[in-house]
Amino acid sequence: MLRPRSSGCCRRSGARRNPFSFLLGRPYCGAVMTQMILLNGGSSSGKSGIARCLQAVLPDPWLAFGVDTLIQAMPASMRTSDAGIEFAPDGEVIVGPEFRVLEAAWIDGIAAMARAGAHVIVDEVFLGGAASQQRWQQAVGELHVLWVGVRCESAIAAAREIARGDRVPGMAVSQADVVHRGVFYDLEVDTTHSESMECARTIAAQIK
Amino acid sequence: MLRPRSSGCCRRSGARRNPFSFLLGRPYCGAVMTQMILLNGGSSSGKSGIARCLQAVLPDPWLAFGVDTLIQAMPASMRTSDAGIEFAPDGEVIVGPEFRVLEAAWIDGIAAMARAGAHVIVDEVFLGGAASQQRWQQAVGELHVLWVGVRCESAIAAAREIARGDRVPGMAVSQADVVHRGVFYDLEVDTTHSESMECARTIAAQIK
Amino acid sequence: MLRPRSSGCCRRSGARRNPFSFLLGRPYCGAVMTQMILLNGGSSSGKSGIARCLQAVLPDPWLAFGVDTLIQAMPASMRTSDAGIEFAPDGEVIVGPEFRVLEAAWIDGIAAMARAGAHVIVDEVFLGGAASQQRWQQAVGELHVLWVGVRCESAIAAAREIARGDRVPGMAVSQADVVHRGVFYDLEVDTTHSESMECARTIAAQIK
Amino acid sequence: MLRPRSSGCCRRSGARRNPFSFLLGRPYCGAVMTQMILLNGGSSSGKSGIARCLQAVLPDPWLAFGVDTLIQAMPASMRTSDAGIEFAPDGEVIVGPEFRVLEAAWIDGIAAMARAGAHVIVDEVFLGGAASQQRWQQAVGELHVLWVGVRCESAIAAAREIARGDRVPGMAVSQADVVHRGVFYDLEVDTTHSESMECARTIAAQIK
Repeated sequence: MLRPRSSGCCRRSGARRNPFSFLLGRPYCGAVMTQMILLNGGSSSGKSGIARCLQAVLPDPWLAFGVDTLIQAMPASMRTSDAGIEFAPDGEVIVGPEFRVLEAAWIDGIAAMARAGAHVIVDEVFLGGAASQQRWQQAVGELHVLWVGVRCESAIAAAREIARGDRVPGMAVSQADVVHRGVFYDLEVDTTHSESMECARTIAAQIK
Repeated sequence: MLRPRSSGCCRRSGARRNPFSFLLGRPYCGAVMTQMILLNGGSSSGKSGIARCLQAVLPDPWLAFGVDTLIQAMPASMRTSDAGIEFAPDGEVIVGPEFRVLEAAWIDGIAAMARAGAHVIVDEVFLGGAASQQRWQQAVGELHVLWVGVRCESAIAAAREIARGDRVPGMAVSQADVVHRGVFYDLEVDTTHSESMECARTIAAQIK
Repeated sequence: MLRPRSSGCCRRSGARRNPFSFLLGRPYCGAVMTQMILLNGGSSSGKSGIARCLQAVLPDPWLAFGVDTLIQAMPASMRTSDAGIEFAPDGEVIVGPEFRVLEAAWIDGIAAMARAGAHVIVDEVFLGGAASQQRWQQAVGELHVLWVGVRCESAIAAAREIARGDRVPGMAVSQADVVHRGVFYDLEVDTTHSESMECARTIAAQIK
Repeated sequence: MLRPRSSGCCRRSGARRNPFSFLLGRPYCGAVMTQMILLNGGSSSGKSGIARCLQAVLPDPWLAFGVDTLIQAMPASMRTSDAGIEFAPDGEVIVGPEFRVLEAAWIDGIAAMARAGAHVIVDEVFLGGAASQQRWQQAVGELHVLWVGVRCESAIAAAREIARGDRVPGMAVSQADVVHRGVFYDLEVDTTHSESMECARTIAAQIK
């Protein structure tokens, strides 16, 4: 893990500290530029809205992708097969081995876009908590990533899921907490009482 | 105007009083059943979310239609012609004579659905303020309609418009106030600091 | 059934004859204006595309609604409940009693729009064959409706269902034939080897 | 250009020959596996439908991305700015310098997904003809790409654009020919008289 921005002088988050920071040596807090913003949160926590607000307030153009982009890119049959991804009636999302293979290549590709010079916002749902984050960490390597946790009280997220009307009911509740287990962040925002734009401005203030 | 529910003993709103209530005679506040809920508010004020929450919390099934349903039903050419509807670059919506003809028939049809026994939620944008409301009043006649104003502070609605990402920027601001001019309500809700579900529960409590 | 346009001198279809035409008396084939075009066909037979092409080629503006508009207007819970509508894994669509109640009001409302002066195209799936058509006939009464059957070979419709990617696989096959059982038409088109626009022009030529 | 599959013994297309094939040396037509299928054609030529059919008929899971995925990932402001992408009223698409920068990174990322082991279908519109293809060639390098031209008669594509109803009218006509200028293919399909599934099967037969 080579993330100078996560070291002491740069940290602005009360979230769990990067457990690998001892590997980082002396932090360099100067001219590093954020190349990727990774938003992690449960369904209906407000990640996509924050991503769009970030695109609007950041001076440079940023590309925004999400796990929904990946699911949309998969064969229709993968969305209901045991090997792919399954949305259980209670909103639980079950991911199979073939999903993992495609996801790994997807993550490598998104990292390659950032290496090629695009600023990239990723909107993710770490169903596996820390294990999910590690998959991204390995792919992003030396890239300067701002890791952002997007929280929302479970009951509020569940109500917003109903208001949206385009999600399997139950996903918000089943994901609200598990996606943050063991995950470290540079910054956390909470949409329970804050607007997407407000959260986006908080995040944008951390971008270099 | 035959709206027993708007008369004194029934009113629960601080909004402008129905100016035609003197025509109503003695109010009957007993067994009348709400047949239609009409939500009026500017773009991105949160009407659709409230409508979906109402559908979730009300015990009977309610149909939900909006001005978007009508626009979607129109020929593509109507969406950019002077005679139809035009979305100006600054978000202003300009409506032409052919739009008005189709809209009048649409309103009659929605009222007919309610008369035929369906519970109907309508999600509207009264671009003409009081004049728009009168078009609905004439069509709904004796039906028991709950008129609901959906407010949202202009700046917040504009930020939510950006977060949604699927609207012409500027609509939220240009509509926030004008749609309420001269309009009377049985009830008003404000989404600036309240969730859609919370507003829906407030409205549902007024349904008979 | 008062449908002058279905009588001898006007018929241009080889489809099953209107069984109620003996009630019509002497046909009047002069100045009657088509007020509604009802397209009936299975899923992925191409109805919506034909409807949009009709809107483009007909000189007056026509509103286009479909059974999808109704389903979209229903509460989310109705889309998966026994009382509402259910999409079985094999593509079969099962409709419950509460769906029927709302559908009846919807049909009355669409007929009211046509009576109020709007030209209306309806894109329907007569899951109940002749019984479904009778529900529409009772509602439209004296309106001048052009009944159009939209056919498509089952295998071709199934392949287009895959190409569209937004439908439950199997609907095209399970509906291809049953929706036409016992239904009479003024005109039939077949999209197996004809483009939507071509079919629309054939239909438009029958509009008065 | 290292594309063994384009050399003599493998070519199955009457399309323009790869002008760089002299660089390829002796072709190896044995065990190479297709890693990417690149479909190029004008708007409404049927590329997305073919991509979904390919996903359905190919035995392995393939990811499908298109230029629409990229446009969707861009900031909303890029979709109407001179620096980004602009959809002129006549359907012409004008692309600015900032679009090109993000597009280059996107192409690198998609190539990286294929290198990481994902099978990838790309659905593209080579607005710049041969110059657009060269951008992809440089990025894909040694990957085994099947270059597929998707043709459709201009008038038919324009009619399908109307039937779809979700595209800026005029794109189909303005793109039908220019996107193929100077582009070489391994295979060409024509959707004018062929179904998406039929074209997909033709393409799938060339996949190793």
